[in-house]
Amino acid sequence: MRIVKVDEAFTIKRTVEAGKEKEQQIVDGIIKQVREQGDEALFALTRDLDGADLTQLKVKQSELDQAYQQVEPNVIAAIREAIERIRDFHQRQVTQSWMTTHSDGVMLGQKVTPLDRVGVYVPGGKAAYPSSIIMNVVPAQVAGVSEIAMVSPSQKNGQLPAGVLVTAHELGIKEIYKIGGAQAVAALAYGTETIAPVDKITGPGNIFVALAKRAVYGVVDIDMIAGPSDITVLADETAIPSHVAADLLSQAEHDELATAVLVTDSKTLADAVSEQVETQLKTLPKEDIARTSIENQGVIYLTENLVQSIRTVNQLAPEHLEIIVENPMEQLGKIRHAGAIFLGPYTTEPVGDYFAGPNHVLPTEGTARFSSPLSVDDFVKKSSVLSYSKEALIAQADAITTLARLEGLEAHARAVEIRLGDDSDE
Amino acid sequence: MRIVKVDEAFTIKRTVEAGKEKEQQIVDGIIKQVREQGDEALFALTRDLDGADLTQLKVKQSELDQAYQQVEPNVIAAIREAIERIRDFHQRQVTQSWMTTHSDGVMLGQKVTPLDRVGVYVPGGKAAYPSSIIMNVVPAQVAGVSEIAMVSPSQKNGQLPAGVLVTAHELGIKEIYKIGGAQAVAALAYGTETIAPVDKITGPGNIFVALAKRAVYGVVDIDMIAGPSDITVLADETAIPSHVAADLLSQAEHDELATAVLVTDSKTLADAVSEQVETQLKTLPKEDIARTSIENQGVIYLTENLVQSIRTVNQLAPEHLEIIVENPMEQLGKIRHAGAIFLGPYTTEPVGDYFAGPNHVLPTEGTARFSSPLSVDDFVKKSSVLSYSKEALIAQADAITTLARLEGLEAHARAVEIRLGDDSDE
Repeated sequence: MRIVKVDEAFTIKRTVEAGKEKEQQIVDGIIKQVREQGDEALFALTRDLDGADLTQLKVKQSELDQAYQQVEPNVIAAIREAIERIRDFHQRQVTQSWMTTHSDGVMLGQKVTPLDRVGVYVPGGKAAYPSSIIMNVVPAQVAGVSEIAMVSPSQKNGQLPAGVLVTAHELGIKEIYKIGGAQAVAALAYGTETIAPVDKITGPGNIFVALAKRAVYGVVDIDMIAGPSDITVLADETAIPSHVAADLLSQAEHDELATAVLVTDSKTLADAVSEQVETQLKTLPKEDIARTSIENQGVIYLTENLVQSIRTVNQLAPEHLEIIVENPMEQLGKIRHAGAIFLGPYTTEPVGDYFAGPNHVLPTEGTARFSSPLSVDDFVKKSSVLSYSKEALIAQADAITTLARLEGLEAHARAVEIRLGDDSDE
Repeated sequence: MRIVKVDEAFTIKRTVEAGKEKEQQIVDGIIKQVREQGDEALFALTRDLDGADLTQLKVKQSELDQAYQQVEPNVIAAIREAIERIRDFHQRQVTQSWMTTHSDGVMLGQKVTPLDRVGVYVPGGKAAYPSSIIMNVVPAQVAGVSEIAMVSPSQKNGQLPAGVLVTAHELGIKEIYKIGGAQAVAALAYGTETIAPVDKITGPGNIFVALAKRAVYGVVDIDMIAGPSDITVLADETAIPSHVAADLLSQAEHDELATAVLVTDSKTLADAVSEQVETQLKTLPKEDIARTSIENQGVIYLTENLVQSIRTVNQLAPEHLEIIVENPMEQLGKIRHAGAIFLGPYTTEPVGDYFAGPNHVLPTEGTARFSSPLSVDDFVKKSSVLSYSKEALIAQADAITTLARLEGLEAHARAVEIRLGDDSDE
């Protein structure tokens, strides 16, 4: 792996998104087609882009039954345990409505209401991800969303992978559509004959999905614009090189565009990890993908001390951050930007991908500076609640009308004054 | 006002955003110009678009001092009281980091960290809005954001309105720039020589600001894409027509594109409000704006009963909702979508614009279906935290590696297994 020396003055430039004009044009065309032709466009695009000739968009009960025959009992057991753990974690995120009462007759509060209907995008492509279903659906269900529509690109045989179907069924999803890409996003946002429009679309996807989500943002809400996955391992000389290398490769195997980074102040560790990465690469089934990722994006930042290491991590704002240093918990408070933080030598990143409980839908490409993991909060909205007594309005009328008139908004001032009794038609 | 009869089958079509291709092209050009030319572009665009020939972008201390001489003491007192009340409300929104410990040595949690640096857009134009500053800055400050940069379009004389400057100073804002429009959004997102880039941009603006915010979304976070303001008054025969009319006009005076709607099951009220709107319009300083708004977007939905009224309100998903019916609190639980809900005859919407405490930055154009008022949550991000003991990893290894292999991710499984001791280089 490439080793870059970091000193006091070193800064990592913030990622600025590159122009994706060609892809954007394709996406805009697809969205237009789906809005104009509805289901017909979905069938045509799925044939052209996914190579699948569907007879219907929605997954049938018989397909679900068939899927169960293809999945081993121990896999189903693992899926069920994962759902349980992930649900347990997300239940701790639930926020309640609240209301405060004041002695002057003012009541103020915040009402929490689940979204009515959401769409969940489950990627196909390089790997089928049953875990993505759990990670998107569980927070929506915990939030209280009553309608969940799932979309996932059809395989060439017109089916979804059995693991995907079983997972969806275990979660109780009733609406599953065999469509993917920008066309699925457009269908969820605008609706078609078969698919009712949703209020929010969540879930990761490729560049076309990401651009489509941004294009429909405002018509519906979206979770985030996800890019390729990344990991940063912050380690000192106490870390075991083969473990660090295995963790870096677990990201690298996702995607040629994935990024695996080691930040360390130990030259010995840097050299040993670099060597281990090469050794372990050779026996990986996805060696080609992982190697491309490591060669193009992989980097070891060699710093002068832990302080520099932490500064470098905060500049990277990684999606996944492993802290394998002597006292990992002591460093936690210094981390300003990271989607998920894995502490200590045994918290390898894959524990968070499927099983531990926290969400694996995380901010990528440095957006941990301002974004959070997908959570229950993404599936509720809040409404402010205000209630004034006549006495409270009288008491505050002067200040409110003063501010309204400062802003040149006379009708605002009059809406208060008309209630004070002197010029009402009561 | 136009009266539309609502029956059982009536539905309001979801707003689907119109094409804004011309404006989008202008915005894209402005963003490119700011990215390429930095400050120079800001000076040029402010000259061309705002008609102001600035000598520097940042507001100087002497301008702040001058502003204080132009604002009356009672106005400053009202601003201070508003800040205090708004801060009190937002402090109740603060969420804490949490951590759970499990007996198997697993610790899971959620770390809450404020954003480092945010940009606040304060509109100029049809009215200067000191209250916008308070509503954007207070939640950021309560969240613990350390750097706040404010932008607001310069008046032709090269100054910001005194009320805007005084309000910013009262809040302790150190960075105020006299720029607006898409150019201000671009400067905040990408940075220039004078302005450091931010992590998030909040605050309402016109269509150019809205399109620019969407264009930079992903590079930075944004609060929402705000459209013209709207109000819906849900009223029954107990409502006083002149009060309802005054409230509708307080929205209508904001903008020709603002929307004021009455939903009622009382024909008597509908007719009386319509008449009162006409009467009150005649004496409004902003009669022209308000009249255009009422004539183009204003509508009274006349329903057959309260149930239909509630259903219509939920279809509208209003930004502001007043409930002026016999038992307003009883209806609260039935409201699924609304930015802010004003209960009862004395809670006129203007109390929420400046003073009561809840935020006035609210989801417009039906986006209350999925969006929330601006809040402290908008200025923090969360990180998941995971810590596994060796024992916990051993106990869960089977399930985790089963799921990893189901997804075809062998390197994920190996990152777990290498830690189990049998093939590590410890």
